[in-house]
Amino acid sequence: MASYDTTSSPPAAAEEPLKRSAPPPEYNGGFSPVVDVALRVLLFATTLVAIIVMVTSKQTKLIPLAPGLAIPLPAKFQHAPAFIYLVAALSVTSLYTIVTCVLSALALMTPGGCSTKLQFHFLMFDALLLGIVAAATGAAGGVAYIGLKGNSHTGWNKICNTYDSFCFHTAASVLLSLISSITLLLLVWLSISVLYKKTARR
Amino acid sequence: MASYDTTSSPPAAAEEPLKRSAPPPEYNGGFSPVVDVALRVLLFATTLVAIIVMVTSKQTKLIPLAPGLAIPLPAKFQHAPAFIYLVAALSVTSLYTIVTCVLSALALMTPGGCSTKLQFHFLMFDALLLGIVAAATGAAGGVAYIGLKGNSHTGWNKICNTYDSFCFHTAASVLLSLISSITLLLLVWLSISVLYKKTARR
Repeated sequence: MASYDTTSSPPAAAEEPLKRSAPPPEYNGGFSPVVDVALRVLLFATTLVAIIVMVTSKQTKLIPLAPGLAIPLPAKFQHAPAFIYLVAALSVTSLYTIVTCVLSALALMTPGGCSTKLQFHFLMFDALLLGIVAAATGAAGGVAYIGLKGNSHTGWNKICNTYDSFCFHTAASVLLSLISSITLLLLVWLSISVLYKKTARR
Repeated sequence: MASYDTTSSPPAAAEEPLKRSAPPPEYNGGFSPVVDVALRVLLFATTLVAIIVMVTSKQTKLIPLAPGLAIPLPAKFQHAPAFIYLVAALSVTSLYTIVTCVLSALALMTPGGCSTKLQFHFLMFDALLLGIVAAATGAAGGVAYIGLKGNSHTGWNKICNTYDSFCFHTAASVLLSLISSITLLLLVWLSISVLYKKTARR
């Protein structure tokens, strides 16, 4: 019994510190929390500016109907359902980003605060919002393209030669929401790689 | 010394089998590989049918230009850049799905073949394709909506009262690509949860 104890206990005692030192209790993937917060701040900025640019796009022009008769006709984003959807999607993303940005920053400041569970929930919602914002960008971009180029086959005239300021606002908003989509994709990729690194360090 | 050995060794011996039995060497998340392959088969089916439905949407109608004068005018998906983008995005997704479906099925049949690294790479590409397919669905949906309802503010007339079969094909294709987007989101969520479970079992 005494010999069993002396042979078995030293390797167990030697393995114990090794096991404890190899994987840190909470691995945050090096600089990834800082990049995460930076990307979320960028996402918030792009979505907010895209909303403001789209909402302030209203432009009124005098459209000649007959010689000597012209009526003021406004162009605003509410006229196209795709633009309304874009504003709605960007608003949801903007609000969501405020919450996650604050939580990410708090987790960054608190030692060991960035839990895997929090990151997992962020990742699920980030992926969902990626789909929503990408679809909204596509829809608004598709409609804006018709406004810019028209479509001779269906007889849809371009409107950007008349409403130049409205089109500029719309194009800027679509471009910003494209940047938001790419930022969301980068956030998803970052979180996935952090999760993967955690798994690889098992 | 003897009393120390008798008190310390039994709990250590009791913990050892527990520690070893808890995390299997390669945890695949229970039924998730089967669901993964099933979702990929569904994704392949929906993208392929969406492409076929869109490509075969051509419809020619006699459009009256003047009393007694009508010319045949075709409507096809190549007339709208948004529909071309949809077909391109769905083609890429379809080809990608064939590769991943075969690899997933092989990994399912091989014991321990579904490595975390493979799953990680799938997840990165799945997230990218989710963005691309969602944007394409949005763009095609936005243009198809104008074709269906028109837009009185911009003077874009609806074309679905004339080209009914073309519109039916387009709507079916957009709906199928929406299902593809949702399937891609589910695939991303599934892979994330499997990765998270692996991390939690660290």
